[in-house]
Amino acid sequence: MTAAGGAGGPQLLRVQCFNVSRDGFGSGEGQSLERPFGHADPGSLFSWAGATASWINRTDPGGTRGLDDYLTRDHARNRGAEIMGRNKFGPQRGPWKDHEWQGWWGDNPPFHTPVFVLTHYPRPSLTLADTTFHFIEAKPAEALALAKEAANGQDVRLGGGVATVREFLEADLVDTMHIAVAPIDLGRGEQLWKTPEELEDRFHIESAPSVSGVTHLLFWRR
Amino acid sequence: MTAAGGAGGPQLLRVQCFNVSRDGFGSGEGQSLERPFGHADPGSLFSWAGATASWINRTDPGGTRGLDDYLTRDHARNRGAEIMGRNKFGPQRGPWKDHEWQGWWGDNPPFHTPVFVLTHYPRPSLTLADTTFHFIEAKPAEALALAKEAANGQDVRLGGGVATVREFLEADLVDTMHIAVAPIDLGRGEQLWKTPEELEDRFHIESAPSVSGVTHLLFWRR
Repeated sequence: MTAAGGAGGPQLLRVQCFNVSRDGFGSGEGQSLERPFGHADPGSLFSWAGATASWINRTDPGGTRGLDDYLTRDHARNRGAEIMGRNKFGPQRGPWKDHEWQGWWGDNPPFHTPVFVLTHYPRPSLTLADTTFHFIEAKPAEALALAKEAANGQDVRLGGGVATVREFLEADLVDTMHIAVAPIDLGRGEQLWKTPEELEDRFHIESAPSVSGVTHLLFWRR
Repeated sequence: MTAAGGAGGPQLLRVQCFNVSRDGFGSGEGQSLERPFGHADPGSLFSWAGATASWINRTDPGGTRGLDDYLTRDHARNRGAEIMGRNKFGPQRGPWKDHEWQGWWGDNPPFHTPVFVLTHYPRPSLTLADTTFHFIEAKPAEALALAKEAANGQDVRLGGGVATVREFLEADLVDTMHIAVAPIDLGRGEQLWKTPEELEDRFHIESAPSVSGVTHLLFWRR
């Protein structure tokens, strides 16, 4: 990585390509194995990203190379670790019945770094291709310290879900955020905010509307 | 680089962070050693980039991390070589009197790759830190073939100036372009276009206005 790639700068905690509805919900009500986002239609939240040339799960050539593509292709830049909540890892609640569940992502998860899964029910670490999931019970600041060390100087991505992002915002540990606001209302579920203005005392906020219909909100610390 | 970083996809010829005035001029009239952009004030064209956290020449911490920063930090991503015109390399015209001129950029040029300088007056290659300038007399397609080979699978940046970008557009060799339109008129100089609509038969065009005052125009092949 060269200087312009971001390495060598401060080691940031970044929220990226996190999707919410116009009314601030990142997930609908009632997560299950069949409906990871509850009553919300994931397509209505994520389709802007899937249409881009750099979307991480793209297998065919093609895709758009406009504004949305800058956002998806920045996703993996200078990223050395991820932190996520247990509900992003899976639909189970409470103690693990067994350790058969290996996440939603199959044999080659799209993280390619250490991932720290916050849970009150730790289990042995799990390696799939070049991603290793560590299950830890930790306060946000402790988890961030672990992830920064594992990231080896690169940035740490805060992957969500909503409750996890809110916890790290409340602890004032988030440096930058990219939230994509989809042109739908969900009405209920996991709510990130009533309005992004709740954060404007601590963050610069820029709004970049895309022709795809989403509005990219970009936050960085004041 | 991971898939989302762009490696593994098609090898593109990209114009990036190229600045023009509202009336389409990339440089003013009368380039000289003292005024590389002629009568144009470079600050009025480039200041949006210099304000960002990821600007390649930034030495202090700080800078903005909004939309403009996505554009500057994408600059070096997956870039393996550069092609530029001789007038971008220096203010001399005609045969070289000597080889003392080493470009505008000092001992550590911001390219960090092979750079192919198109000129009717070749001279020996020149290495400064991790940038090597090769001076070649070649048609656009020949220069692109050389640069793609040197880029080792990564993309090639077409660095300008205006005449060079126009030449490669006329030869239909450009895959993507990011042109930042500054809110000034120059009236005379090197003109990229009368209006970007000249290109809409061959390119998708998206317009992303920034709070900095520039409008980012993003082009990719239809």
